[in-house]
Amino acid sequence: MLKGILSVLLVLVTLSSAIGKPEKTTPKKEKRIPQTLSRGWGDQLIWAQTYEEALFWSRSKNKPLMVIFHLEDCPHSQSLKKAFAEDKDIQKLADEDFVILNLVYETTDKHLSPDGQYVPRILFVDPSMTVRADITGRYSNRLYAYEPADMKLLLSNMQRALKFLKTEL
Amino acid sequence: MLKGILSVLLVLVTLSSAIGKPEKTTPKKEKRIPQTLSRGWGDQLIWAQTYEEALFWSRSKNKPLMVIFHLEDCPHSQSLKKAFAEDKDIQKLADEDFVILNLVYETTDKHLSPDGQYVPRILFVDPSMTVRADITGRYSNRLYAYEPADMKLLLSNMQRALKFLKTEL
Repeated sequence: MLKGILSVLLVLVTLSSAIGKPEKTTPKKEKRIPQTLSRGWGDQLIWAQTYEEALFWSRSKNKPLMVIFHLEDCPHSQSLKKAFAEDKDIQKLADEDFVILNLVYETTDKHLSPDGQYVPRILFVDPSMTVRADITGRYSNRLYAYEPADMKLLLSNMQRALKFLKTEL
Repeated sequence: MLKGILSVLLVLVTLSSAIGKPEKTTPKKEKRIPQTLSRGWGDQLIWAQTYEEALFWSRSKNKPLMVIFHLEDCPHSQSLKKAFAEDKDIQKLADEDFVILNLVYETTDKHLSPDGQYVPRILFVDPSMTVRADITGRYSNRLYAYEPADMKLLLSNMQRALKFLKTEL
């Protein structure tokens, strides 16, 4: 059973050892802070937990989905997260008009990595369930990467994502 | 793109309308409490976010995975959650020897619903990525359901899950 996803898992294992051990080794004795779904990207926003859930919400609410791939121990992810969480326009638009998901693990959907798996990267998915590969940042080698200085571009890309490919399914 | 999972999503839509609307309608003005990954099943435990992540951890740590399917507005889920969170033996064993995941949305893996999709239900997955369909509760009509009175059975099932199908891959 489950052998179909074995290859995907092997990819993940390879990937993970390449990017360093994820941090799950909280000391036993200390009281742990409960993990949040926001992971610091906006504690006041409502986050989907999984890609399946996010697609369901996107479709049923007719809102575009924004997927943020990041790693907690990646400095580029951390600085982008800070800028993202502090940008009131982005937070407001994300709250009102988007389904949002942040992931530290890749999904099995290859459409979410049009030019490879790297962090941080941000992809938009239309409520028609089409990944908006046309909505890119400013870096030609990593089309879906953003830096803290790119918040205006990200905001305008969010506004672009709001113009649906199909208004009615 | 992504049309392959459309049928799955349609199942989810049907399912969701059957089991009642998920609660995501927090009033705008109130300060929201950040969502936690534990969702009350054990704030001091370390939870995986997605099934893919959980499988990765199970494999790389060689620990069995426990998947809890529940719904936040389901009274049976709520009472099981309370018993689960308050049971020190279960919490300790889950913390030390399991990879744990709680989901309010179904995954696309049909092996996780051997006798249908219902909540609450608890499935174990071996580090060899085999769903332990043999580890069941006491209800013949819903094999993977547990009630608050079943905590001893659940604990012994967790101990059973620790006896791996294969000790080495």
